[in-house]
Amino acid sequence: MEDESGSLPPISDFSAWYNDVLWRAEIMDVRYPVKGLYVWYPFGFGLRRHTYAILRNLLDVSGHEETLFPLLIPKTEFMKEAEHIKGFEEEVYWVTHGGLSELDVPLALRPTSETAMYPMFALWVRSHADLPLRVYQIVNTFRYETKHTRPLIRLREITSFKEAHTVHATWDEAAAQVEEAIGLYTQFYDDLCIPVLISRRPDWDKFPGADYTMAVDALMPDGRTLQVGTVHHLGDHFSLTFDIAYEDAAGERQLAYQTCYGISERCIAAVIGIHGDDRGLVLPPKVAPVQVVIIPIIMKKMAEEVRAAAESLKQELEGLGLRTRIDDRDLRPGAKYYHWEMRGVPLRIEVGPRDLTAGTVVAATRDGEKMSLDRTRVSDEVPAILDAFGVRLRERAETRLAERIVPASDLAAASAAIETGVAVVHWCGDEQCAEALEKETNGSVLGTGVRSTHIGGGEGNCIVCGRPGSTLTVIARTY
Amino acid sequence: MEDESGSLPPISDFSAWYNDVLWRAEIMDVRYPVKGLYVWYPFGFGLRRHTYAILRNLLDVSGHEETLFPLLIPKTEFMKEAEHIKGFEEEVYWVTHGGLSELDVPLALRPTSETAMYPMFALWVRSHADLPLRVYQIVNTFRYETKHTRPLIRLREITSFKEAHTVHATWDEAAAQVEEAIGLYTQFYDDLCIPVLISRRPDWDKFPGADYTMAVDALMPDGRTLQVGTVHHLGDHFSLTFDIAYEDAAGERQLAYQTCYGISERCIAAVIGIHGDDRGLVLPPKVAPVQVVIIPIIMKKMAEEVRAAAESLKQELEGLGLRTRIDDRDLRPGAKYYHWEMRGVPLRIEVGPRDLTAGTVVAATRDGEKMSLDRTRVSDEVPAILDAFGVRLRERAETRLAERIVPASDLAAASAAIETGVAVVHWCGDEQCAEALEKETNGSVLGTGVRSTHIGGGEGNCIVCGRPGSTLTVIARTY
Repeated sequence: MEDESGSLPPISDFSAWYNDVLWRAEIMDVRYPVKGLYVWYPFGFGLRRHTYAILRNLLDVSGHEETLFPLLIPKTEFMKEAEHIKGFEEEVYWVTHGGLSELDVPLALRPTSETAMYPMFALWVRSHADLPLRVYQIVNTFRYETKHTRPLIRLREITSFKEAHTVHATWDEAAAQVEEAIGLYTQFYDDLCIPVLISRRPDWDKFPGADYTMAVDALMPDGRTLQVGTVHHLGDHFSLTFDIAYEDAAGERQLAYQTCYGISERCIAAVIGIHGDDRGLVLPPKVAPVQVVIIPIIMKKMAEEVRAAAESLKQELEGLGLRTRIDDRDLRPGAKYYHWEMRGVPLRIEVGPRDLTAGTVVAATRDGEKMSLDRTRVSDEVPAILDAFGVRLRERAETRLAERIVPASDLAAASAAIETGVAVVHWCGDEQCAEALEKETNGSVLGTGVRSTHIGGGEGNCIVCGRPGSTLTVIARTY
Repeated sequence: MEDESGSLPPISDFSAWYNDVLWRAEIMDVRYPVKGLYVWYPFGFGLRRHTYAILRNLLDVSGHEETLFPLLIPKTEFMKEAEHIKGFEEEVYWVTHGGLSELDVPLALRPTSETAMYPMFALWVRSHADLPLRVYQIVNTFRYETKHTRPLIRLREITSFKEAHTVHATWDEAAAQVEEAIGLYTQFYDDLCIPVLISRRPDWDKFPGADYTMAVDALMPDGRTLQVGTVHHLGDHFSLTFDIAYEDAAGERQLAYQTCYGISERCIAAVIGIHGDDRGLVLPPKVAPVQVVIIPIIMKKMAEEVRAAAESLKQELEGLGLRTRIDDRDLRPGAKYYHWEMRGVPLRIEVGPRDLTAGTVVAATRDGEKMSLDRTRVSDEVPAILDAFGVRLRERAETRLAERIVPASDLAAASAAIETGVAVVHWCGDEQCAEALEKETNGSVLGTGVRSTHIGGGEGNCIVCGRPGSTLTVIARTY
């Protein structure tokens, strides 16, 4: 399914690198004949599978239950929440015909599932004993994007939207759930070795129908931030509209409070972009579809012994639960190295006649550490080598992020900073000042109350109007 | 989320039982406001998760790779294969609008993915070295059903369609893949403790665009068969249309041959229907969301010790990989037994003060075997108890199937036989005879060449025209 002709552009030319690595590493095929729709290659799907298994597990062990709601939402339900409609009306796909006849009520392809789920929540929630309700689903959602589309990042079919929805007795309990969700997402991205910035989106950029929106942003190599998760406190907007109420301990009817939070396949885009290098993908061990590739070095002598040694090594590593593959294709070793480096495999182990004689194997990590291992020690050492590799990936990403977060005290400095990363400025919170700031710098206000070890606290003068007592805000060019 | 008022109809009133058990056991919520669309409750989704994990694993280990193609198929592609269009044109949902504007090309919601996948296969397959190609995906598909809809059985959104698609160098290799798929499906249903009938569908009932269709049918308690899997040899119909060809070893361009095979959430309907009883679900151990439920019997004395004993038992069983839950709700034990029997939990373990004193626990299987186990032997015995329970489920289902397969030598006998099951008749293969047979008996010809240990071989006289040398065929009332 691949063509290894030509070569990968350097990652410094990020947009070209990204488009190219997707097919060279067999993540997505972009040749599907509809704009904004893409095909997951099996290797890419393997990456998706392991990534979403982590997410699923985090949700399962923290009291969420997986469920599945219909894709099709009747227009009558979809149109119930006014702000929500306004936020989505230009982006919704409509099914108008079934077979050869027109439908009585058009059906929306869910852009997100509030209006599919909440009429059911109204039936499910009756008493305080039913709360909190925490469910999630991993589904395809749709947006009629008119902007430039890009695989995994801006799609018409978001194939892998994990959306969680919760219902609580009080506003404060919902706010606590928002914090828990932020914790889960931080843990998730930590497993992907990705440092993130958490901030509270400005009001004009919050989810349609939310009290407030917390966002998780990652910094891509081209200096633009990618929103890789959002957590919304919905207050009672939707519970009012959909009549989600419960009987409290005293027998009184009370309106419920809600949250919702989501992560899409942008998490995969972040893994690809943030860790990749000039030779292709570099995958965190926990999500790599192939964690260890074994390359038998076949010469004339001892060919059978080398093959057998590779097979026994594979079985030993699989016994440790490691996803291991032998590449025994009839190609020169260099071509195989190139192939698996492109696919980001964390560890390569070479087994040749000399190794057999010496009782060793050669191990090379994807970031260039090469070592000779005693064959009898492989099972002991490989897990630690993979762990250490993951730690290095995380540290490297953390360092790069820290380097590109730059405090700026005037607009020119802010403009310069967001050429390569994130500018930290003081902003008074006034929307007009934000407009001026965005216009002057050509960036966007990500949000306030930024949680990052790389950003301190402290008040200062608004970068636009100079008002003292303004708080720290991050701005960046965004995807 | 449940209401345990009223009681479950007896399974002899199957249609009422089925509708009721779906919500009482929290499998599906049927109150979603669009006909033919339903909501998976978390418990039902757990059953789906474990069932599809088996299916996924069977495909993975037999050389299939998981992938994911878009839901939306442009009309231009969809309309390319003439027979295929004819088979689906009355059932396809069409997306005609994106946001506020009309689309240039309407988009079909996939009823199945041939026309989404095969244009890509044409790009993926170039040389004989690319073959065989074997991929699968588990996705939602759509049919605008005008008939009576029914959860898990006849849906407008099939939420869980596992479709596999393969490409081969020759017709024979594709035929061999058909056999392999039948083997996988038989294994899958064996894991669900469900005996199936495999047969070759008559030509008028094959998949639109197939050379032939093999079908997997299960027999439901009301005597109707449920098609729970199909395997299609597509010949070169689609490879001609979509230009899927390869260069053979001699450098010649050759047309490829294809197969596809699918299983939907009907597999869950079969699990529910075939094993259920008057008290609710009876779930095979491999797919039960809760395999063991522990009921602490809380009295005044030793309440804390009982709670601690239940917790330590749970941890021990989870250590064996068993999905275990403690029901410590403030309800009387009888209400808890009822609750978990309805949900089909294979094994219930009761721990009370008397058990603590005696060093035992009471174990009761869902099919009514009750025993006292030495507490120290629980880890040794529970896995074997679950295995034996699964064996009994399978045997019970096998016996019931065998009893309801009845040879019939005249139309009256065939009519009578299909009131409760499947009639085995001789049929000459002539379509007119089949029409008469179906009309007279009010049944359908399932197919020929039936593979079942309950059906022998041997030729005979056609049940309609009397022609000698006719082969065995099964007929039944179908879902």
